[in-house]
Amino acid sequence: MEFKAGQIAALIGGEVDGDPEVCVNTFAKIEEARTGALTFLANPKYTHYIYTTDASIVLVRRDFVPAQPVRATLVRVDDPYAVLSNLLEYASQAMTPSPVGIEQPSFVAPGVEIPGDAYIGAFAYVADGVRLGSGVKIFPQAYVGHGVEIGEGTVIYPGAKIYHGCRIGARCIIHAGAVIGADGFGFAPLPDGSYHKIPQIGIVTIGDDVEIGANTTVDRATMGSTVIGRGTKLDNLIQAAHNTEIGCNTVIAAQTGIAGSTRIGDYCMIGGQVGFAGHIQVGDRVKIGAQSGIPNNVPDGARLMGYPAVPEMDFARQAAYIKRLGELFTRVKALEKSEKQ
Amino acid sequence: MEFKAGQIAALIGGEVDGDPEVCVNTFAKIEEARTGALTFLANPKYTHYIYTTDASIVLVRRDFVPAQPVRATLVRVDDPYAVLSNLLEYASQAMTPSPVGIEQPSFVAPGVEIPGDAYIGAFAYVADGVRLGSGVKIFPQAYVGHGVEIGEGTVIYPGAKIYHGCRIGARCIIHAGAVIGADGFGFAPLPDGSYHKIPQIGIVTIGDDVEIGANTTVDRATMGSTVIGRGTKLDNLIQAAHNTEIGCNTVIAAQTGIAGSTRIGDYCMIGGQVGFAGHIQVGDRVKIGAQSGIPNNVPDGARLMGYPAVPEMDFARQAAYIKRLGELFTRVKALEKSEKQ
Amino acid sequence: MEFKAGQIAALIGGEVDGDPEVCVNTFAKIEEARTGALTFLANPKYTHYIYTTDASIVLVRRDFVPAQPVRATLVRVDDPYAVLSNLLEYASQAMTPSPVGIEQPSFVAPGVEIPGDAYIGAFAYVADGVRLGSGVKIFPQAYVGHGVEIGEGTVIYPGAKIYHGCRIGARCIIHAGAVIGADGFGFAPLPDGSYHKIPQIGIVTIGDDVEIGANTTVDRATMGSTVIGRGTKLDNLIQAAHNTEIGCNTVIAAQTGIAGSTRIGDYCMIGGQVGFAGHIQVGDRVKIGAQSGIPNNVPDGARLMGYPAVPEMDFARQAAYIKRLGELFTRVKALEKSEKQ
Repeated sequence: MEFKAGQIAALIGGEVDGDPEVCVNTFAKIEEARTGALTFLANPKYTHYIYTTDASIVLVRRDFVPAQPVRATLVRVDDPYAVLSNLLEYASQAMTPSPVGIEQPSFVAPGVEIPGDAYIGAFAYVADGVRLGSGVKIFPQAYVGHGVEIGEGTVIYPGAKIYHGCRIGARCIIHAGAVIGADGFGFAPLPDGSYHKIPQIGIVTIGDDVEIGANTTVDRATMGSTVIGRGTKLDNLIQAAHNTEIGCNTVIAAQTGIAGSTRIGDYCMIGGQVGFAGHIQVGDRVKIGAQSGIPNNVPDGARLMGYPAVPEMDFARQAAYIKRLGELFTRVKALEKSEKQ
Repeated sequence: MEFKAGQIAALIGGEVDGDPEVCVNTFAKIEEARTGALTFLANPKYTHYIYTTDASIVLVRRDFVPAQPVRATLVRVDDPYAVLSNLLEYASQAMTPSPVGIEQPSFVAPGVEIPGDAYIGAFAYVADGVRLGSGVKIFPQAYVGHGVEIGEGTVIYPGAKIYHGCRIGARCIIHAGAVIGADGFGFAPLPDGSYHKIPQIGIVTIGDDVEIGANTTVDRATMGSTVIGRGTKLDNLIQAAHNTEIGCNTVIAAQTGIAGSTRIGDYCMIGGQVGFAGHIQVGDRVKIGAQSGIPNNVPDGARLMGYPAVPEMDFARQAAYIKRLGELFTRVKALEKSEKQ
Repeated sequence: MEFKAGQIAALIGGEVDGDPEVCVNTFAKIEEARTGALTFLANPKYTHYIYTTDASIVLVRRDFVPAQPVRATLVRVDDPYAVLSNLLEYASQAMTPSPVGIEQPSFVAPGVEIPGDAYIGAFAYVADGVRLGSGVKIFPQAYVGHGVEIGEGTVIYPGAKIYHGCRIGARCIIHAGAVIGADGFGFAPLPDGSYHKIPQIGIVTIGDDVEIGANTTVDRATMGSTVIGRGTKLDNLIQAAHNTEIGCNTVIAAQTGIAGSTRIGDYCMIGGQVGFAGHIQVGDRVKIGAQSGIPNNVPDGARLMGYPAVPEMDFARQAAYIKRLGELFTRVKALEKSEKQ
């Protein structure tokens, strides 16, 4: 996939300033770009890089006036960042495999209807009673259990597993190795100290436009449903326990864990490796720093950090105080000494 | 699956108080139940919900006397909670797929005997020398390596991987994506700063009645065996390193990590995201709070929390003191000031 | 696999002192060894075990003189630890399955060349454009996406997934369930609070002699490449986000997370459950204790611990001070009281 500066300029309505024959085959940031890369200059802070970059093409604003000679071919556009985003989308669609049809051998239970524009990869397993929307892509080695429903345009990447009865919305992306609907972790202690498994007969419901990261686990509810709201994005290796409910358009970074029955609101931003206690309520528009521990309810709009979590600004202050504890002990000792005299 | 109040009462020896024709198709907690749900009232604290619930059927004690009119049909039994638990078990067995037989295509090495009541799902791989107990279920895309032994009634969910030589007890549940018996993480540094892999020739031994959560990893021993004791339950995304030994009837929540050669006793309860250092001994009946870090041995019966962990009560006190550090610095400053005068 | 003391001595150039007919079938540490095990004595601290061990054979130095009677057969060699390591290597090679050939059913896209000494397990998926080095082993149910390159001698264990375009070096080991090249976690907020997915068109590049643990995830770059350097070893359940770069011969323990665009140097040793913020630089030969949080750049050779991390020695001191906070509050109160009088 190689494009000339002239072709790109024509595609995006830009103006070539330099060699229209120069070719690119990749994208890069301006500070890292090598020969063959297309990059862009949007933030004035990065302007100095344009005089040293090895990039072959740089997208710049129409009114950009170089203060020194520039080796790269410039393509002048109204909004370099927006144009780059669009080019990235085109490239992504061109580069990401988007197969259609049913590869063999795959397993599709009798009676399951596969839409004509869907993809079922080799070694994928589609159990009885499954309902698939149009354009669904089930990559190789993925498992779709009994009675699962998957909305249109959703992509299930290789080896993801959806246990029986779960419901996945439209335009979702479930990455490789994610496990949706395994049993919640519930056991009743018996008098002899052993445990009796509490049946987990609920399901998992995932809204539209949700992305679930690689090897993330979302457990089925004991009764009812574990819920991931519309537009929410979960990173890799996250644990969402049984009966958790995560709102809409909430973003959670990798390795965070949410204990059972906890509810997290809409529009939250949660850092990586955070732990939420069970049975708590976290409001809307909450921001939580990485590695925090959240033992209690959190009101709307709070910004927390730490273990146990405190308001973000208090966390920085606490850390500073803790660094000075040795000094404080010394000062108290000095006071005690002078008092005795 | 829909049942009438009259059918349920007959099944469980209850007495209908209301419409015997009303139907239910699901279970719910009394505070969340909607039309079509069966719920129960056991804890008197929840009694007020019975007058407002939309549940279609409520299991109540035989001597329950409503203080106000109740819309739901009541079914009177001796012990509502016990009856509900039994109904949940029935429902769980009815709803959880329990297939039998060998689906094709699957891979079973020559000479491996598959019991008549076992299940081998499509795309499952059963290597040579494997021994399977009666009623074992190997779901699709699971991998059972060379010489593995699996006890009767054990379920291996889709995509779980058991490396060669490992031994799994009877009535275990291994959830999707769990990896049992990958190499322990052992490397000997060489003079040039690179590493030589130390062979990991041990195995993993899992006792009877163990449950292993989705995407949890239990590494094989360097020599000998990593051991998970009878009745122990591991949640999702847990790491148990090489030569760890976890006792019997111990419960460990998600994302906890146990470093190499550490031993954890029987009847312990370990929170989520806890980290155990390597080569330490943790006693029996120990309770450890979420996100704790355990650097040293822990005696029987201890209750710890924090990073590094301290007794549970000290942790709360420490957190309270830390919140007041700013105040303490101010007080010390005031003392210093008044001393100078 | 059973060997007599005489056979072993002949193999390793040792001298039998005891019964040359005694047999062993396993290895063990001297303090744990039972009948049938071969062990070794290298560290004088462990000498007392030789008089009580149930091991059948003990490797000892040629000049070892027992102070009491020894039941085990001794095999005298120049360097017992080195000899044991060699025997372990032999045993490991003998015990670890090392299959060759193409099992059926597997999926190999037309045009992909499978070297004669390679292994493609049943239900493995090898997409179009894949290039495989000699001796590569792709275990069952592994996925190798479009255009992936894998260097000679690399082993991909069951169910590991390599997304399209990624490059894996020679002699690497990718354990079961690892996911290489899933989309980085990048979303642009829209005015209505929902998110637009930022295309992730980069790849993952893994150097030679790298080991990636079970269920570890290494995301593809937004642009360019996420990089794991030559000789680096990642344990299980690690998250390496998009555009992270990890140097050569660095060792990272389980469940650690590295946020986007962070660079970690060469020869580092990183504990388990550590979290690295995004866009930071960590130098060479850095050591970081388990569960630490690294918010900022780290210079070469630093040894850090804590959340947020501080120099290792300060961490121990801080923890000690924090334990004494109650005492400090009491002392300050006493000073205040005496001042008032």
